[in-house]
This record gives sequence, structure tokens and C-alpha cells, in this order.
Amino acid sequence: MTNPTACLLIIGNEVLSGRTQDANLKYIATRLGEIGIPLREARVIPDVRETIVATINEVRAKFDHVFTTGGIGPTHDDITSECVAEAFGVPWEPHPEAWSRLEAHYARQTPPGDFNAARQRMATMPRGAVLIDNIVSIAPGFTMGNVHVLAGVPRIMQAMFEALAPTLKGGAPVVSATVHANGLMEGRIAEGLAAIQARYGDVEIGSYPYYRPGGGGVAVVAKGTDADAVKQAAHDVLVFLRACGAMPVEGEPA
Amino acid sequence: MTNPTACLLIIGNEVLSGRTQDANLKYIATRLGEIGIPLREARVIPDVRETIVATINEVRAKFDHVFTTGGIGPTHDDITSECVAEAFGVPWEPHPEAWSRLEAHYARQTPPGDFNAARQRMATMPRGAVLIDNIVSIAPGFTMGNVHVLAGVPRIMQAMFEALAPTLKGGAPVVSATVHANGLMEGRIAEGLAAIQARYGDVEIGSYPYYRPGGGGVAVVAKGTDADAVKQAAHDVLVFLRACGAMPVEGEPA
Repeated sequence: MTNPTACLLIIGNEVLSGRTQDANLKYIATRLGEIGIPLREARVIPDVRETIVATINEVRAKFDHVFTTGGIGPTHDDITSECVAEAFGVPWEPHPEAWSRLEAHYARQTPPGDFNAARQRMATMPRGAVLIDNIVSIAPGFTMGNVHVLAGVPRIMQAMFEALAPTLKGGAPVVSATVHANGLMEGRIAEGLAAIQARYGDVEIGSYPYYRPGGGGVAVVAKGTDADAVKQAAHDVLVFLRACGAMPVEGEPA
Repeated sequence: MTNPTACLLIIGNEVLSGRTQDANLKYIATRLGEIGIPLREARVIPDVRETIVATINEVRAKFDHVFTTGGIGPTHDDITSECVAEAFGVPWEPHPEAWSRLEAHYARQTPPGDFNAARQRMATMPRGAVLIDNIVSIAPGFTMGNVHVLAGVPRIMQAMFEALAPTLKGGAPVVSATVHANGLMEGRIAEGLAAIQARYGDVEIGSYPYYRPGGGGVAVVAKGTDADAVKQAAHDVLVFLRACGAMPVEGEPA
């Protein structure tokens, strides 16, 4: 069985300008691997309407799932939700359930918050949106077709992702096995690794140099959905690195 | 004058799988802003030949500059260089200057390293490539047309970027001014910020909530190439936040 695929759109000028270090890609990529929906592409795009609409329409046709982060707050630069409506060609309108959740949330605050026009935008969604719960700050994300719209703030994004996760049907989980060896240089092991890769068509073998005070080495990662093949490939790597005169160790370098 | 634009391609399965946290986007974005070549898009793509070739050809037509990181080492999963050759439709062949630098480098090592077939791949480049110096680990990056091919390891990437930077002709630098206020919620200031944004067409005003132990607030960033307008917009934000009853402070929250 082929696994479903995913694309992540990171929406926000603050990431593209270098102000903010993205912290969502790594989380989403890791969790999607566990669920068996490998992330095949990620894009960082600005808060520009035409760019967001065109990109959503391009990638929702190309991947089984699209996840977006960012741009669903109350301010003028939060335009993801209305762009999703435009991409799907549906009205952007108050969502009754989101509306009542937010109205109740602001009424509960001490002193009561104002459910003003800006906050009402967070309860305005493409027609047909299915809510994604937000236990951190109430304002929900949503799913529209195969597009899952999440917050940009990492702890809110993570709460939304975990609320959504049980509904995502993945294939076999992506598993990986790492072997590393201090003191080895990639250039010495490259040909042997290529030969191992050639024997395992369904396993991705990646080679990653690392640097540590006092010396570095190479970490070799075998990854795939066939757990037995991944294990066997990692074993072959271990034997090969030992034959190169190194003292390879299973797992990531500390 | 309109500024030239840039796109970044982060090439590597290890970023898409969540194994590795990208550390290059923030550096490149920040430096490009200073140089006046704002980054308009970034993509993370896998070590897959057809994907790399198609993406390079798409974005080099769309942006003034394309920067790539990753995939130029000696191992079988390092295929960026040959993909650039394929994208440009030119031979991938030994580059005499890169070849002699690397040959000399390995000969200098104690004991002498082997300039083997895998390492020779790092001296093999698209015909017409212009070298980008690498003072950290010798093996050069290169520029092909408007595509600048850099290493993935951050300190090597940074050395290459700074070797390249003096040759990049930018427009006006992108400058920014930040005002933050503890205790404010975005939903309270959204309408006022939108009104300020409406007065400054050439300034991007972004609103970013932050969370700190003991309370959070909102940081508002004004950004653009017109330094006077950026300064004036940030001043208007300061006055507005004060009118909301907050104690706004210039600069990023600590």
C-alpha cells in the first residue's frame, strides 16, 4: 500500500523575514511520519492573498493532505481563513459553533472580554468548514476538504494537531534506524553507502555529518515503511562502518 | 526602485522527516533583508531528482535569485549539483579549479586523504558554474545563472553566503521597527492596527502575540524599505497602544 502524502504551508511574513524561527515543521513532520502520512514538501509563503490562494489550490491538488500554520488570529495580517474560502470558491461566513464557543469564552473572562469585530473574524470560516478543537485558546482551526488550517503559535498548533490526529488515516508508519560513528568522514564511506542503498530500494539511506567540540563524525539514517528492511539496512551500515575501522554505535550522536 | 526578490530551496529528506531542525532559513532571510533582496518564498523539498529539477526551473523563472541549501556533499543522497546541471540543460563535468582545490586539500591532510570518486563528485559541476569559496571545508559552492548553490551544514553555508554576499546587488535594505506591550491581547488592538496599516501602504505591519512565564503580550513589527515611513508607522503604533491603556516599549520583548 502506498502511503498518503502531505504538504505543509507555513504562512507568515515573520518567518520569511527571519524574525521568527519556525518551530512547527519539525513537530508536524515527526507526527505525520508516525501516523504514516509522510511530509513531501513544505513551503513558507508571505501574508499575500493571491500567493496564499494560488498556493493552496496548487498543493491541495498535488498532495493527499495539506496543513497550514499561521494567519488565523484576529488582526489585519491574519488572512488564511478567507484565502481558503476563496481557494475553494465558497462564501466566508460566520460559523455558528465557532461563534458560540468564542462568544461564551469572552463572556467568561474577568472582566468580560469584548467579542468585537476583530475577534468575530476568528469565528468566520469557509462554508463547509469542519472545526478543529483548540483547548489552549478556544478559537478553533478547521478542515476544508483536504486542507487542515492550524494556528501558528506552536503550543496552539500542537493542541489543534493532536485534536485532528485521530481522524487522519495514514499508511504504515515511517520508521527509522540511525547508526553513527565518531571520527569518520563522509567521503571515506560514500561509495560503500551507495552500494548498501542500491540493495534496499524501499529504504532511504541518508548520510549526515555532525560536528562536536573535540571532533565529529557521520550519522547514517535508514528510513522507510518496511520496518524489517530498515532494520536490516541499518545493520548492514553498522557492519560496513566497522569494516572501515570505526566504532559505530546505534542511535543518534549525543 | 523595486527590490530584487529571492527564493530559498532547502533540499533534504532530513528536514522533511523532522530529524533535523532547519537553521539556514533564518540566517539567509535576515542577511538578504539587510542586502535588500527580500526572501519571498522558501520550500523544503526531498532528495528526489525530478522534484529538485522541476522546482529549480519553476522558481528560477519566478524570482531574481534562488538560493539552495543541502545536497552537495560526497554521498549518494547528495544530488543537488547534478540536478542543477539537468535543470539548466548543461553537462555535469569536472570543474578544473574546484578539482585542484580539493586535490590539494586532501594531499595536505595528515595522513593524506584519498581524493576518491566520492570526493571527486564535489568537484563536478554544471558547465559554466562560478565557484563560491568555502573557507571552512574547502569544497566550493557555485552560482549557475541566478541559482546559488550552498552547503546544508550551517557554518559552511554561512561561510559560502558571506563569500557570495559582496557580489549580490540589492535594493534598499529592508528595515524594521518593533513595539511591544505586555498584557495586551491582539483582539483588542486589531481594529486600530488595521487603521494604521491602511495609512501606510508601503509598510508591512505585523502583529505577533508572545507568551512568557507570568504573562504575555503583543509585539507589533513595522517593516519596509522606506526607513522614514517604517519609523513613523512604528511611532503611530506606540501612540495607539498607549491610548489602549498599555505601556508599550520599543524593540522586541526580552
